[in-house]
Order: sequence, then structure tokens, then C-alpha cells
Amino acid sequence: MGREVEVKAEVEEDLSEKITEAGGRYLREVFQEDFYFRHPCRDLAERDEALRLRREGEKYTLTFKGRRVGTGTKMREEIEVGVSDLEGAVALLERLGFEKAFVIRKRRREFLMEGVLVSMDDVEGLGRFVEIEVLMEGESLEHAGSLKDKLFEISQKLGIDREKLTTESYLEMLVSKSSSSKHRR
Amino acid sequence: MGREVEVKAEVEEDLSEKITEAGGRYLREVFQEDFYFRHPCRDLAERDEALRLRREGEKYTLTFKGRRVGTGTKMREEIEVGVSDLEGAVALLERLGFEKAFVIRKRRREFLMEGVLVSMDDVEGLGRFVEIEVLMEGESLEHAGSLKDKLFEISQKLGIDREKLTTESYLEMLVSKSSSSKHRR
Repeated sequence: MGREVEVKAEVEEDLSEKITEAGGRYLREVFQEDFYFRHPCRDLAERDEALRLRREGEKYTLTFKGRRVGTGTKMREEIEVGVSDLEGAVALLERLGFEKAFVIRKRRREFLMEGVLVSMDDVEGLGRFVEIEVLMEGESLEHAGSLKDKLFEISQKLGIDREKLTTESYLEMLVSKSSSSKHRR
Repeated sequence: MGREVEVKAEVEEDLSEKITEAGGRYLREVFQEDFYFRHPCRDLAERDEALRLRREGEKYTLTFKGRRVGTGTKMREEIEVGVSDLEGAVALLERLGFEKAFVIRKRRREFLMEGVLVSMDDVEGLGRFVEIEVLMEGESLEHAGSLKDKLFEISQKLGIDREKLTTESYLEMLVSKSSSSKHRR
């Protein structure tokens, strides 16, 4: 159980080189497939909550994301549990009335920069993004202000304009993109 | 994902010796702590379904149990998923609106007898039971009839009267016991 604080920005080019030049250490590359579920009797989007089942190679994680608090950065509670099997988890959730609503697939390259996780994401159907994130484990919320400043400082070092930063999730981007393309029809 | 077919009976004495004398092979002893959850918007008891989180040493399993089909033995769908952490799983379920409703703790000694799992259970607050169970993995339902006969045959070998066999779950026994003790007040 933790809390994530993050910002992201759409970028035109791959910032990998820029990140390592600015002192970021390359960690790994992963492909993530995220299934978001609809709750049988709660509007999770309305509550600003989410239930996600992630496949990362042979590793599967079920995550509850709580509502965002504060402004400027995205800070929300995260409860993560590893699960042994993807199909079983989907079947179990479906038997409880949950429904797969959206899938988000991305290639992510992770870097560690001044204790902060910086990811270059290529998100299927959405584009290229950089995400700058800190995980707080049991730290107090008072701490959050200085963490926010840290995130802004790092995005500046990577040459990202503050006004380009967003707290929107990929899920929201996908939802608003798919609904606007529906309107266009 | 499988299907369990089982019968159980309350017994006065420990049948361990009888089981091994009848050819049962001792497998292991475990302590199981089972948390049953209330669904945020479905009456699982009414639907004859259940959601259980089991702690068995350092191993945690989340199980959905479907409604019973057939008579005489208890046959129901089971979907099981291992989870990495008990507290996290409880917190995640609670944030989705599920509530811990009942806890069942038991000491179980397992034996394998003619391909069937025979368990001697000491269930906290309920008593001593023998449970005779087969797990079907992908087998057809037509097969179920002969499995039922097998379960009856084994219970007979252990000297258990057929009329003592029940398809009630420990959860149901606990629920009816706690509601009848409430009535007595």
C-alpha cells in the first residue's frame, strides 16, 4: 500500500538520451498490458478510482487506484497485490460482476534520476510520453509538497515546459479519445 | 479453474487411524484461516456463491465459489488465484466495497485415498468433520456421477452413515449457528 505522486507530458521525441545525459540511470525496458475494469455497482470513473490488472511478462498485478488529491501533480493511493495467474484473475473478477472496459498497452523504458522514476512510454494509440513519478511508502502527506517540487525540477531539467505537464491518466486520455472519435462519426 | 465435488460429515472421533488403515496415505497438516466477503451489491449467499480469501501459512489464495449443482454431493465451480499479500488483498477488496463477513479457522489433516482427498478437519467453533473431495480439472460433467459414487464408497469404507453426509459448507454451518444463538438470547 502506497501513494504515487506523478506528472506526465506528451513529447515529440524519445528523451532516453536526454535523460541519461542529465544523470538518469537506465533500469529496464518492459511491455505492459493493462486491463481496466468496470465495477458492478459503482461508477469508478466518477469516483476517480480505478481497478487495473497488469500483465508485465509473466508477472501479474492487481491494483486499486484511489481518487486524486491535490493539484499540479497526480497523487493517489495505490493498493497493489501480485496475482498468480491472469486468466484466473479475469475470470474471478468477471464472476463477481466486474467487466473489462479498456486495455492499454505500452512499451516503457525506466530510468532512475535523483531518486525519481522517469519513464519513456510508447502508448499504443496515444503516442509518446514521459512520466515522472515518486512512490511514497508510509511517508506523511506533508512530505508531498517537496516531492511535487522535485518532479517539477526534473521535468525542467529534461526541457519539458510546465504547461505541458498533465495529471491525466492514460486511461482518461484513451476514454476521451475514443468518445471524441465517436462524436466525429 | 476447476470444479469440486465433495461431501462431508460431522464425526465424533478422529478418523486418521481409520483412514490410514483403509489405505489412505497421509499428506500433510495445515492450518487454514478463511475470510469470507460480502459483495457490495450482490447477495452472494442468496446466489449460492462465495468469495473467500484463504491464509495457509505464507500462502494466500482468493477463491470464487459458484453455485452448487446437482444433489447428494456438493459440486460447484471454483476459480482460484494466488495472491502475494493478505493485507493488501483485504485492503483492495474493501476499497472496492467488499466487506469481511465471516472467518473460519481450522486444522486440517489431508490423506489421499484411492485418488480422492480425505481431510480430517477440526473447525473452530463447529467441531470435527471429515471431508471427502475430488477436484475435476476440465473433466466433463457426465463424469460427475461416477465421482459421486466414489465419494459415497469411500465414506462407507470409513464407516460413515450415508444419512450423516451433508453438502453444507462450513460457512453455512457457522452462519446458521450464529443466527440460532442470536435467537436464543
